[in-house]
Amino acid sequence: MRDIAVFTGSAHPELAAEICEHLGVPLLPTKTSRFANDCIEVQLQGNCRERDVFLIQPLVPPVQENLVELLFMLDAARGASAGRITVVLPHYAYARSDKKDAPRISIGGRLVADLLQTAGAHRILAMTLHSPQVHGFFSVPVDHLHALRELAHHFRGYDLSNTVVVSPDLGNAKEAAAFARMLDIEVAAGAKQRFADDKVVISSVIGEVADRDVIILDDEIAKGSTVFELLGRLRERNVRSIRVACTHGLFASQAVQRLSAEKDVEEIVCTNTVPIPQSTRSDKLTVISVAPALAEAMRRIHNGESVSALFT
Amino acid sequence: MRDIAVFTGSAHPELAAEICEHLGVPLLPTKTSRFANDCIEVQLQGNCRERDVFLIQPLVPPVQENLVELLFMLDAARGASAGRITVVLPHYAYARSDKKDAPRISIGGRLVADLLQTAGAHRILAMTLHSPQVHGFFSVPVDHLHALRELAHHFRGYDLSNTVVVSPDLGNAKEAAAFARMLDIEVAAGAKQRFADDKVVISSVIGEVADRDVIILDDEIAKGSTVFELLGRLRERNVRSIRVACTHGLFASQAVQRLSAEKDVEEIVCTNTVPIPQSTRSDKLTVISVAPALAEAMRRIHNGESVSALFT
Amino acid sequence: MRDIAVFTGSAHPELAAEICEHLGVPLLPTKTSRFANDCIEVQLQGNCRERDVFLIQPLVPPVQENLVELLFMLDAARGASAGRITVVLPHYAYARSDKKDAPRISIGGRLVADLLQTAGAHRILAMTLHSPQVHGFFSVPVDHLHALRELAHHFRGYDLSNTVVVSPDLGNAKEAAAFARMLDIEVAAGAKQRFADDKVVISSVIGEVADRDVIILDDEIAKGSTVFELLGRLRERNVRSIRVACTHGLFASQAVQRLSAEKDVEEIVCTNTVPIPQSTRSDKLTVISVAPALAEAMRRIHNGESVSALFT
Amino acid sequence: MRDIAVFTGSAHPELAAEICEHLGVPLLPTKTSRFANDCIEVQLQGNCRERDVFLIQPLVPPVQENLVELLFMLDAARGASAGRITVVLPHYAYARSDKKDAPRISIGGRLVADLLQTAGAHRILAMTLHSPQVHGFFSVPVDHLHALRELAHHFRGYDLSNTVVVSPDLGNAKEAAAFARMLDIEVAAGAKQRFADDKVVISSVIGEVADRDVIILDDEIAKGSTVFELLGRLRERNVRSIRVACTHGLFASQAVQRLSAEKDVEEIVCTNTVPIPQSTRSDKLTVISVAPALAEAMRRIHNGESVSALFT
Amino acid sequence: MRDIAVFTGSAHPELAAEICEHLGVPLLPTKTSRFANDCIEVQLQGNCRERDVFLIQPLVPPVQENLVELLFMLDAARGASAGRITVVLPHYAYARSDKKDAPRISIGGRLVADLLQTAGAHRILAMTLHSPQVHGFFSVPVDHLHALRELAHHFRGYDLSNTVVVSPDLGNAKEAAAFARMLDIEVAAGAKQRFADDKVVISSVIGEVADRDVIILDDEIAKGSTVFELLGRLRERNVRSIRVACTHGLFASQAVQRLSAEKDVEEIVCTNTVPIPQSTRSDKLTVISVAPALAEAMRRIHNGESVSALFT
Amino acid sequence: MRDIAVFTGSAHPELAAEICEHLGVPLLPTKTSRFANDCIEVQLQGNCRERDVFLIQPLVPPVQENLVELLFMLDAARGASAGRITVVLPHYAYARSDKKDAPRISIGGRLVADLLQTAGAHRILAMTLHSPQVHGFFSVPVDHLHALRELAHHFRGYDLSNTVVVSPDLGNAKEAAAFARMLDIEVAAGAKQRFADDKVVISSVIGEVADRDVIILDDEIAKGSTVFELLGRLRERNVRSIRVACTHGLFASQAVQRLSAEKDVEEIVCTNTVPIPQSTRSDKLTVISVAPALAEAMRRIHNGESVSALFT
Repeated sequence: MRDIAVFTGSAHPELAAEICEHLGVPLLPTKTSRFANDCIEVQLQGNCRERDVFLIQPLVPPVQENLVELLFMLDAARGASAGRITVVLPHYAYARSDKKDAPRISIGGRLVADLLQTAGAHRILAMTLHSPQVHGFFSVPVDHLHALRELAHHFRGYDLSNTVVVSPDLGNAKEAAAFARMLDIEVAAGAKQRFADDKVVISSVIGEVADRDVIILDDEIAKGSTVFELLGRLRERNVRSIRVACTHGLFASQAVQRLSAEKDVEEIVCTNTVPIPQSTRSDKLTVISVAPALAEAMRRIHNGESVSALFT
Repeated sequence: MRDIAVFTGSAHPELAAEICEHLGVPLLPTKTSRFANDCIEVQLQGNCRERDVFLIQPLVPPVQENLVELLFMLDAARGASAGRITVVLPHYAYARSDKKDAPRISIGGRLVADLLQTAGAHRILAMTLHSPQVHGFFSVPVDHLHALRELAHHFRGYDLSNTVVVSPDLGNAKEAAAFARMLDIEVAAGAKQRFADDKVVISSVIGEVADRDVIILDDEIAKGSTVFELLGRLRERNVRSIRVACTHGLFASQAVQRLSAEKDVEEIVCTNTVPIPQSTRSDKLTVISVAPALAEAMRRIHNGESVSALFT
Repeated sequence: MRDIAVFTGSAHPELAAEICEHLGVPLLPTKTSRFANDCIEVQLQGNCRERDVFLIQPLVPPVQENLVELLFMLDAARGASAGRITVVLPHYAYARSDKKDAPRISIGGRLVADLLQTAGAHRILAMTLHSPQVHGFFSVPVDHLHALRELAHHFRGYDLSNTVVVSPDLGNAKEAAAFARMLDIEVAAGAKQRFADDKVVISSVIGEVADRDVIILDDEIAKGSTVFELLGRLRERNVRSIRVACTHGLFASQAVQRLSAEKDVEEIVCTNTVPIPQSTRSDKLTVISVAPALAEAMRRIHNGESVSALFT
Repeated sequence: MRDIAVFTGSAHPELAAEICEHLGVPLLPTKTSRFANDCIEVQLQGNCRERDVFLIQPLVPPVQENLVELLFMLDAARGASAGRITVVLPHYAYARSDKKDAPRISIGGRLVADLLQTAGAHRILAMTLHSPQVHGFFSVPVDHLHALRELAHHFRGYDLSNTVVVSPDLGNAKEAAAFARMLDIEVAAGAKQRFADDKVVISSVIGEVADRDVIILDDEIAKGSTVFELLGRLRERNVRSIRVACTHGLFASQAVQRLSAEKDVEEIVCTNTVPIPQSTRSDKLTVISVAPALAEAMRRIHNGESVSALFT
Repeated sequence: MRDIAVFTGSAHPELAAEICEHLGVPLLPTKTSRFANDCIEVQLQGNCRERDVFLIQPLVPPVQENLVELLFMLDAARGASAGRITVVLPHYAYARSDKKDAPRISIGGRLVADLLQTAGAHRILAMTLHSPQVHGFFSVPVDHLHALRELAHHFRGYDLSNTVVVSPDLGNAKEAAAFARMLDIEVAAGAKQRFADDKVVISSVIGEVADRDVIILDDEIAKGSTVFELLGRLRERNVRSIRVACTHGLFASQAVQRLSAEKDVEEIVCTNTVPIPQSTRSDKLTVISVAPALAEAMRRIHNGESVSALFT
Repeated sequence: MRDIAVFTGSAHPELAAEICEHLGVPLLPTKTSRFANDCIEVQLQGNCRERDVFLIQPLVPPVQENLVELLFMLDAARGASAGRITVVLPHYAYARSDKKDAPRISIGGRLVADLLQTAGAHRILAMTLHSPQVHGFFSVPVDHLHALRELAHHFRGYDLSNTVVVSPDLGNAKEAAAFARMLDIEVAAGAKQRFADDKVVISSVIGEVADRDVIILDDEIAKGSTVFELLGRLRERNVRSIRVACTHGLFASQAVQRLSAEKDVEEIVCTNTVPIPQSTRSDKLTVISVAPALAEAMRRIHNGESVSALFT
């Protein structure tokens, strides 16, 4: 088999390093220079020729910079005669742009999938895509992991006898239902309407939540507007306690601090698919590493072993 | 502007004829022959050269036959120098295959989208896709209409003061919520798990339904297994009355008759995106035509007018 | 070298099993489910990752069902990270659709070749294509075997001193001439005109056939209309005896029984590129297996050995 | 409609001029320069922007030079923003390379079709392709004219009561049979085997030719080796007279003179799809112009009228 | 002809507005929103259907943001059924990345050209590309304007009898030579070596500059490192006066102020292909508008008139 | 690793043989036949299946014949199931056609790059492309070697204390400057204007050349018009001696003899990227072999070792 060569872009070198530790291979850096005219130049710092190349880059802020850097990394790897190029996308931010809910907009999740392929991606390893349909936006093979297993493992440590999982959004409720089944508990969901990116209204919560311990589950928390809106509805229904869980903890606008300041929020749980700055951290925040799962998937991809066998 | 030329395949000539009546243009037939070895040959019965060609073909049973016929119609239109080819897909059956929920399967909704493009489709006019993300499976421009407006118009004729819309599935609940907003009523949803195509279990209904008039809304009803399962759950909760509505009324295995035989089911409403055989009809069945909506969209596509302006 | 993985679709599992026996590898099945709306779902029952995957599926009736199943198998294999995907097409029915002999039709043989590539085919192993030009319809490498060697081996068992090979059609006469050369005998041909799929007229037979033992050779026999028409012309010329040979014995509309009922037809010879149902069999029917030839070609393709070296 | 712009390459400006006369439009020249390193540069001498551009270039000797010139013309037209580019190929020499009859060769007819598309061809207007399947080698729409009508018109001037059409090759006999039907006479064919490009053996002639007036029909005559071989067989069978007809009269190695020197060859008929040098002409040679047919097809293509309607 | 629809992105709305004024058409804006996760959404504010759409967006800082916005605009226009989409790139910053001068880097100018095409660009209107070869990086038609004519017009107002044009770099000297010919004066050039983006060394100046009035000409000035290095060399050779001219005046790091502070620099001339912030302006800075040239080219592209005819 | 298989076309079998000697592998020939209609057929004389195939073919006169032969070799290798196909282009003649310096011409360097990819090229090994940007014309990976090292090695044998490198053209001066740096000497350049392919005028020489030993360096010398023009300018400036060096010594129109006849030209140095006919040779001509460099690059490409590591 061709040798493996793992490169990281600028987005999340800590996760890449952790993955490489699990794999027992060196992490190869990328040298990204910026010209005076603001164009970037990307040089992969390691031989790619005929190698089984993995490029690790979650699309986190600054998203556009990180996306273009990734496209340049891909083209550089192709031009340098990589044998196969797998993009490891622990967070595919553009997956949220998965439908055309207004005229004359782009379905960004599909466009970016096409751009990655144009630049040279042969396959994708993704984690917790915003909707499962986004898998179908890619023309190249995708291995799609979920962090639900990791999150469920964490919550199994608690007494869940009176607990219900609440999805802030009906559109995401299937994921929450699957999570609830893992924990053998019930599910409820908010009926959310989005008026603008940071203006959401949850008109009702369908399902039983009164006097229950609640685990709010979402795929991504950025500013947290949706979660805060849901907190309001849950309090009106007199829930007993609240924990917040998500895969992608972007936590923009000091979302962790603001959530931590809420008395009835007992814990915020996320994974390290995106970098969690030290300054953002709080006593209530628990970060679970997905590096072992990603490393194991990469090992299996490299060796031609079944990935689905592992995660189902 | 190039002349319009509208062809129908074998799947639903009645709808095509009704559309052409609204457009005031002749319906051009397709002659489909079958060779002794079971291969088909398709000949478009009208000049395509530089015309603005529309091919109307919902993917209804026999789906594979109708799909291949459509692919041959596309290739024939391209080879005959059509100026532009729009596929009118009143029902895109493969949209249900929109995610990879088992290893080593195809995401059929994406594959068929690619096949249509390979065969020559320049654009798609679709109606009520199973999920809005399916739009992003197509590389060519898609105009995606919804029949909710037509269905809502029908139900506004009733007293809705005690009515709730129930989605059989959380995954589809956003659509039901939008429909409920149109009617200014509430929404509930079943938590459905599919074990096989005709083996579904709805473990719970989240939201208030007791003592309410219920409108069950789904995008497609085939055998009706899901609806029957939901009926059981609703009766346990003592709903007052039940109406069933869907866009695509495939009604396999005598679903209309079986539903009509249920005393508490007062009405079954669907549209004519798929052919409703005379034999299937029942007193409880109401069929609403989408021909005016499709015809108006085709007229606007042909004339370069905004389609979104019309339907929002 | 990557491991080999051989899958069969629904079309002809018996041939696939026989091929795998020759190869000494297990035959991996495909699970094809049908949803209530008549869409199919295909799941390959074996790990494809980095494997050298072969998909065996002759395009026999129901052709459209088998074609779509094959397209879904291809897409599933690609999505499951197959290393290379070879379609084994013992019978490529659409090869008969190889020219545009009427306006506004599709050249089906080319279109289906493109669809197979869109769905993920990397290479094709075909047998006795209707015309040799069909090879050029594929953009991917094709290994094109002929069953003439197998058929000739069979006929060498007879006294051929007074025998002539007759092609029912001038368009196919080159194949018959090559076959005649293999047997070191002469060739004649009918001048056929097709008015419809099952309405052919052979206006004349060019070449000497009077008082001769005749071997009628065609690539495919479906209803047998052409052969029956040729029988009439041959009898007018007082041939001595008639044997009928073909590669692809589709035998629609009880063609074997009807041919067997003809007194002067002494034998019908075909291969097993297509399934011959038990009920169709007759004492006059001889079926020759192409499994050894296909298995040997697959072995050589897998090992990177010359395929042409074997068959020329 | 966009204006028409007709360009000729170096291959056959006389035919292009004649076509333009029929169309009543100016013929636009192409300036082809040759650099010191033997590379060519092609400049189209007329505005292409948004025009309906036609490039006339039969692939005649020097074939490779003319092919590359055509590819450069295509790319130049595309780069100059042509609205649509139609290649007019009165002779597509590479159509003879339509199957893989030896290992490790190219199917040139398919490759060159792909090259033309890569360089920018949107559609093809071809005449008398070597086999009808070659149509399917093109991914772009093809209008395929035949010169049989023109040739038949010429021969209807003779007494055909005792005449038979003879195809030198069974592989081409369908064309000869169609021609014979146009003239309401019979057909015969040689059983040809090619050992090398100029070494062919016709082992037998199947069909009645003794004491008949013969019209030999082929699509292309280059050195004439096949025709000379056939002359031998025909004389053995005591034919009464011989005329030779073909669409593409390449007449290499003084073929016209050598054929004219044969006493029993009464006439050689060809069309002007390829240039017939003055020096090659002989009293026995009749050249029929296809310019009216090509011009009418181009007019119809430009105006979006049916081309098949004209020629069937 | 289809109507024209001109949209501007965020990069340089002032230039777009000026162009639209010249064209006499309204400038259509683009609404770019930013989600909490930093992804952007782009909505074109005007009907695109069948329109001749122009998207104006120079790739100026923030380059990556502007590039991604442009890609989304393209995809949105395509999805909204634009008839034709032309990208107007007054400054194509990535053109400087036009060769592979280090291993394992991307040739960004080619990659970005491919990305633009993937996103939906049908043609490009560019100005003063860093090297003329960059034209060949695009697969779609490019109209490539130069601002030399505008710059030359400006300098013709001066006494040029003792003036020489100096290119800071041999690699760009052809452009300077063409400019010198326009002004009928001589040319010289620096022998530049780049050690890093902002570390250049000009080892020598070849050509006569002593006691001459110098016009330094470059295509783009960002930080101005090259110009400052050249100033040093020129002073060592005792030039009489210095003017600095370029097409793309990016002027990063207060380059205008720093250049203006040099006593012997009498004037800095650039065009408005990129936005020149008010704060950056200096008494020594002259900005020439390219809006009339771009507007005229767009008018000709839209009307199908020759663009080359205008600018040569 | 797959076995290597090296084929040569007709262009330069001597170089191919020398390369294979260095590699220690047999040179596999190509059998190119020419049909009576001037079409070629190419058969690769060796098994390609899964091999790492290299096709060696500089584009030398007759360029069009050699180009088409190469395209057919590529298609044949692909059809014969080559594992990977690398085109070795010691001279890419069309690289000189790298910009659009006149309306309605093709950028041949880009078009031919696309044609090579269409025909099946997976990667390119090129030497001394006319401009470094031509690298970006290819969509497939390119390894671009320079012969400067070999040429510099030769000139280091001389006393260079008074020597200057002169580029005949500012556009090529960067290459000359790099060469000068290798030899640690100075550089000068002519300001060339091309009026036609063999009509160039060098208006001035910028840089110090008086009383110096001059090495004229160009990438390619064909007729030598540019060099002769430069000789005139250099003599006006009283240079001391002249040597002429280039990578690609095409030497059309007896260029070597004519240059040798010039008294002050002491030596002409080129490499064997193109064939140097015995008749062309002169006492003043030195030919340096690039076979070792190409062989080493091929070895590294085959083994997946860094090529850049070797040549920088």
